Amino acid sequence: MSTPSIYLQMISTVNESGELRLELVEKPVPVPDADQVLVRIEAAPINPSDQGVMFGWADISAAVSSGAGQHKVLSAPVSEQGMRVMKARMGQALPVGNEGAGTVVATGSGGLAKSLEGKIVAVMGGSMYAQYRCVDAASCLPLLEGHSAKDGASCFVNPLTALSMVETMKMEGHSALVHTAAASNLGQMLVRICQADEVELVNIVRKEEQAALLRDMGAKYVVNTSSDNFMAELTDAIHATGATLAFDATGGGTLASNILACMEAAAARTPGAYSIYGSVKHKQVYLYGNLDTSATVLQRAYGMAWGVGGWLLPNFLAKAGMDVAARLRARVARELKTTFVSHYTNEISLEEALDADTVRQYYAKHTGEKFLICPQK
Amino acid sequence: MSTPSIYLQMISTVNESGELRLELVEKPVPVPDADQVLVRIEAAPINPSDQGVMFGWADISAAVSSGAGQHKVLSAPVSEQGMRVMKARMGQALPVGNEGAGTVVATGSGGLAKSLEGKIVAVMGGSMYAQYRCVDAASCLPLLEGHSAKDGASCFVNPLTALSMVETMKMEGHSALVHTAAASNLGQMLVRICQADEVELVNIVRKEEQAALLRDMGAKYVVNTSSDNFMAELTDAIHATGATLAFDATGGGTLASNILACMEAAAARTPGAYSIYGSVKHKQVYLYGNLDTSATVLQRAYGMAWGVGGWLLPNFLAKAGMDVAARLRARVARELKTTFVSHYTNEISLEEALDADTVRQYYAKHTGEKFLICPQK
Repeated sequence: MSTPSIYLQMISTVNESGELRLELVEKPVPVPDADQVLVRIEAAPINPSDQGVMFGWADISAAVSSGAGQHKVLSAPVSEQGMRVMKARMGQALPVGNEGAGTVVATGSGGLAKSLEGKIVAVMGGSMYAQYRCVDAASCLPLLEGHSAKDGASCFVNPLTALSMVETMKMEGHSALVHTAAASNLGQMLVRICQADEVELVNIVRKEEQAALLRDMGAKYVVNTSSDNFMAELTDAIHATGATLAFDATGGGTLASNILACMEAAAARTPGAYSIYGSVKHKQVYLYGNLDTSATVLQRAYGMAWGVGGWLLPNFLAKAGMDVAARLRARVARELKTTFVSHYTNEISLEEALDADTVRQYYAKHTGEKFLICPQK
Repeated sequence: MSTPSIYLQMISTVNESGELRLELVEKPVPVPDADQVLVRIEAAPINPSDQGVMFGWADISAAVSSGAGQHKVLSAPVSEQGMRVMKARMGQALPVGNEGAGTVVATGSGGLAKSLEGKIVAVMGGSMYAQYRCVDAASCLPLLEGHSAKDGASCFVNPLTALSMVETMKMEGHSALVHTAAASNLGQMLVRICQADEVELVNIVRKEEQAALLRDMGAKYVVNTSSDNFMAELTDAIHATGATLAFDATGGGTLASNILACMEAAAARTPGAYSIYGSVKHKQVYLYGNLDTSATVLQRAYGMAWGVGGWLLPNFLAKAGMDVAARLRARVARELKTTFVSHYTNEISLEEALDADTVRQYYAKHTGEKFLICPQK
């Protein structure tokens, strides 16, 4: 198969007139430097984190598509508030797609680069919603024999995030975890990791069908926010596991505060001297997602030893260091079809990803639905 | 002066019928163990942190006093919500008063204890709203020659908190500070510490008279929340100082969130690649007080590298270790009449501290007003 001289890449732009545009642009196929490889991207997932860059604060309910084929353009209006928040990206054409996988079709002259010739590799680093991507050979994760690009498309964001939650737990002196939006693709990975590593995990979901799904996987602690006894049930599960660290994908509302309140109530079950400042052990909730964009509301009825904050995979990996990152990557490649298996409900082309109705479908982020972009389709 | 066999101690109790009682009880004067000393408490400040234990969630506007002399009792009703929050202290007679100072009137046989005979010492460790207190000799901070118990009554809570803010800044990799309720007694100490240590400090106040007070002290950055341009002025000050750490005494409302938003806006002034995840440098707000008991509302428009959490002096000192604590204590004794000077507007007896109208006066925590209990009065 010969490599073309031009490829298509998806970019997102917010312009001064209050419009977000998502479109395909033609780029010259680059020639790899000595330590680089050229990857023909064959599969790239649409993660919530990709959609942050793709759509920002645009009003997707009012999005429309125009044009056809590679000239299709998605356009969506942006409110005044959205324009203020996105001021820093105004006019910049941002390439999208955090991760993907494909075949190495050209390499530089370096040893590592040449060793990847013809291999199927997973890659992270942006600009993945494209037909080709030139990357450093060292950043590639070669898949095991027999694994396809579709198998390896989601090697990084969800698997490394789930693994890094457990690493964070260990690094910061906690011994069990609470996870919200726990029936998600990432949540299911975390259930499997915690089962394998014998880490106690409290799964919080919103619906009974999600609870059933996790229980079928063997999850021991599943708590449903729609239960009338949610707070009591969560306190029981936290008391049973001793969890003092939670990862919350929703971000907004009172869920983080409620988790802290239940951690404090669980701690108070252990008899000890009363202190107006609450329990001494630090209780932490990290907000790693933004499914609920409303304000985070903290009731602060859980003493003084607590924290809430943003959590971001690249920031964690930078702090944890290269050795930890390499260990986690190797585990992902090894357990790609088991612990880290992803299920895609829809496979779409770059052009289909710009169709307004399709966009609204994946923008809704329904549990169990996951879209895969196949740029060669 | 001979030591009596009985002394008075102030205790606070919440009982099942929804009443908070603050009263004086008689206790036998203890005989010090080998490594202990008996301190005749001559001065003890009323800090906001003392009032948490004294009054909890009781309704002080409806408090009444009854009885006279040492039999005076303050009684205040507690709402159902307050009873739920204070469940863990139900029925317990809690002694109050975190810190104080006085004369060592009896000692154990140990060398350190004996060396303190007749000295004026500052002490921390609870039960200080009392005529006598027996403590470990090692926990005493002997005052320098010529310093009185009134001079040393507030050696710990405010001075160590202010010093520990600067220590936290250094330990956690920040280079400047933001402080709210900055005209408080503690805030003024922090201004003097930062001037001496050449640490840039952004002072946030609510009123122009508070801003004037701090400017008169030589504070360089003072921002008033009641200004129409508060957010822009705070962003300017944060940009000028590079502050990425704030200590907030109010706790509730949107102030912590606004500080983070200004830190992010200040970071965005430095040109760099746009990231939907915001600036990379971690931005932190610690809530160390509770002047505003409403919920903390976080708008989360400041990327992912941020944290908000409780901050408590004893927890910090436990983490920082004995050497740091000893260094900070020595500085307090040395600079007691300069950096760490406290001004008291009212000196009251134990009995007067139970008078409902007096309670309402100090409960209001007006800036510039500070009460000192003189248990020998």
